Amino acid sequence: MRIISYEIDGKPSLGVLTGDATFVAAHELDAALPRTLDALLQQPDGLDRLRRLASGVEGNHRLDGVTLTLPLRQPHGFWALALNFKTHIQETGLTTSLEHPQIFLRVPASFVPPGAPLVAPPPDVARAFDYEGELGVVIGRGGRHIPIERALEHVAGYCAVNEGSVREFQRHNRQFGLGKNFEKSGSYGPWLMTADEFGNPAAHSLVTRLNGVERQKAPLDDMLFSVEAVIHYLSVGYALRPGDVIAMGTSGALPPAADDIAGNDLSLQVGDGPGKKIPGRVHMRAGDEVEVEITGLGVLRNPIVADVPAVYRPD
Amino acid sequence: MRIISYEIDGKPSLGVLTGDATFVAAHELDAALPRTLDALLQQPDGLDRLRRLASGVEGNHRLDGVTLTLPLRQPHGFWALALNFKTHIQETGLTTSLEHPQIFLRVPASFVPPGAPLVAPPPDVARAFDYEGELGVVIGRGGRHIPIERALEHVAGYCAVNEGSVREFQRHNRQFGLGKNFEKSGSYGPWLMTADEFGNPAAHSLVTRLNGVERQKAPLDDMLFSVEAVIHYLSVGYALRPGDVIAMGTSGALPPAADDIAGNDLSLQVGDGPGKKIPGRVHMRAGDEVEVEITGLGVLRNPIVADVPAVYRPD
Repeated sequence: MRIISYEIDGKPSLGVLTGDATFVAAHELDAALPRTLDALLQQPDGLDRLRRLASGVEGNHRLDGVTLTLPLRQPHGFWALALNFKTHIQETGLTTSLEHPQIFLRVPASFVPPGAPLVAPPPDVARAFDYEGELGVVIGRGGRHIPIERALEHVAGYCAVNEGSVREFQRHNRQFGLGKNFEKSGSYGPWLMTADEFGNPAAHSLVTRLNGVERQKAPLDDMLFSVEAVIHYLSVGYALRPGDVIAMGTSGALPPAADDIAGNDLSLQVGDGPGKKIPGRVHMRAGDEVEVEITGLGVLRNPIVADVPAVYRPD
Repeated sequence: MRIISYEIDGKPSLGVLTGDATFVAAHELDAALPRTLDALLQQPDGLDRLRRLASGVEGNHRLDGVTLTLPLRQPHGFWALALNFKTHIQETGLTTSLEHPQIFLRVPASFVPPGAPLVAPPPDVARAFDYEGELGVVIGRGGRHIPIERALEHVAGYCAVNEGSVREFQRHNRQFGLGKNFEKSGSYGPWLMTADEFGNPAAHSLVTRLNGVERQKAPLDDMLFSVEAVIHYLSVGYALRPGDVIAMGTSGALPPAADDIAGNDLSLQVGDGPGKKIPGRVHMRAGDEVEVEITGLGVLRNPIVADVPAVYRPD
């Protein structure tokens, strides 16, 4: 089941895709169903109920007729992994523990809905604004001390994540902090695909395209820490909650083709030095379009726009 | 003005202290006032309105007759600083940028209300569970690109923070991740003191006591990055929002007295090696009581209880 989150008449709504272009509205199936995925996942039988109600129903709305929102409205925690793909560890030359995952957090405001524009910082603030295509894991059933062999039972489903990062700020100090939390720098979606339909995450792969050119392409079994391992790890200290999201880390850059100027010209990259410039990495700039696609799941697509100039704006 | 957040009959409520033991209930002053600080701070004139309504009113409720909650219900971002006090940088021997603050995030579930028990991890999970007394800054007016000289205009008020940390997990990898986000490992409060009453943060000082013994004592002008500097820094990338909290970092341990066994016996500390053990640092254990006091503001006090054993607990 693929569940879209969207807004209609200013009200949050859920839909179930009945094909690649059509859906049924959850509130039309049963007006008593929660209207957000956050609330639906709070109900232990929420997904099953929606699945039963939507089963065999013809789609009566067009996907291109609505505006998608982020799958979740306010995850209690949006956890993200650093350096979890071997190709990304190699290209950065950074060390990371092989025993324990490297984890940080993102605030909701750092994400825009699928299809909505990512905002590139003004050039005088930062220029190394990078895509990071990732697998997003949405928790369905919470818990503490979840054993690895039970971990996937706690997953509601999966989505694609663009964990957009501002490299200059990420490198300001030891903790990533603001560099991973710029306003409107990332996205996730385009929808939630439930775990039963997605199947084994390690059997899938991920592609990131900038302006149609593949920039990342990775099997999801290249991870240092699997989905199961990370769920177990987090649950040792934190009670995972329905609606929590875990972004599983990004892969290395694809080697650029010989005639790929943007991918080969390292002078176009803003790094801390020659070692930090990676062939095939291309910063996102206003006017670009970025896509993160996970096999079978769908394409998360966002245009990039320029932020307004960096002048004082009190609210 | 000191604003308490509490619950009565299961409903969130706000109160204004009229002395050290009494308060008036905001909803009794005007039933139309928001019942949470999160909502009050969304109203540009919210604090002023409450101040006018409470002015000159006699307290008719006893502070010890209600159960305090966390000042904020769900800050959009709970930002925290690492290595911001010179004494703490010295004692850890860690390096940090002198140009840019070191920033990470905490989830709401990592905090318990003032007076409520902090939960010490089971000993087989972690034993280095440490207090971190800090100044908490609560944003009142949001904004982007806030100049340093205007930064304090964006502060609603201040509170004390115990940014409780699980050292073994904090050291698992480069990013602090879970080590700063254990379930119920920290607290903040006991209330919000508005900026006009608190005055210049750098003129205050902070004391942390474990079982009545002073373990941290620091003037708040020992910070590498001031409140103003951090507000400016964050606002370059992120639109600060009313109700955001910034915990300003913790100070070094007080040198223990000669007859202070707990403070002198380094074998009681769980460190990564001799260099990581710090005289005067004492881990929190079940049965302890911890206090963070900021001059003039009040005392944030929490008992410590043991977590239940580390066994699988699905929700």
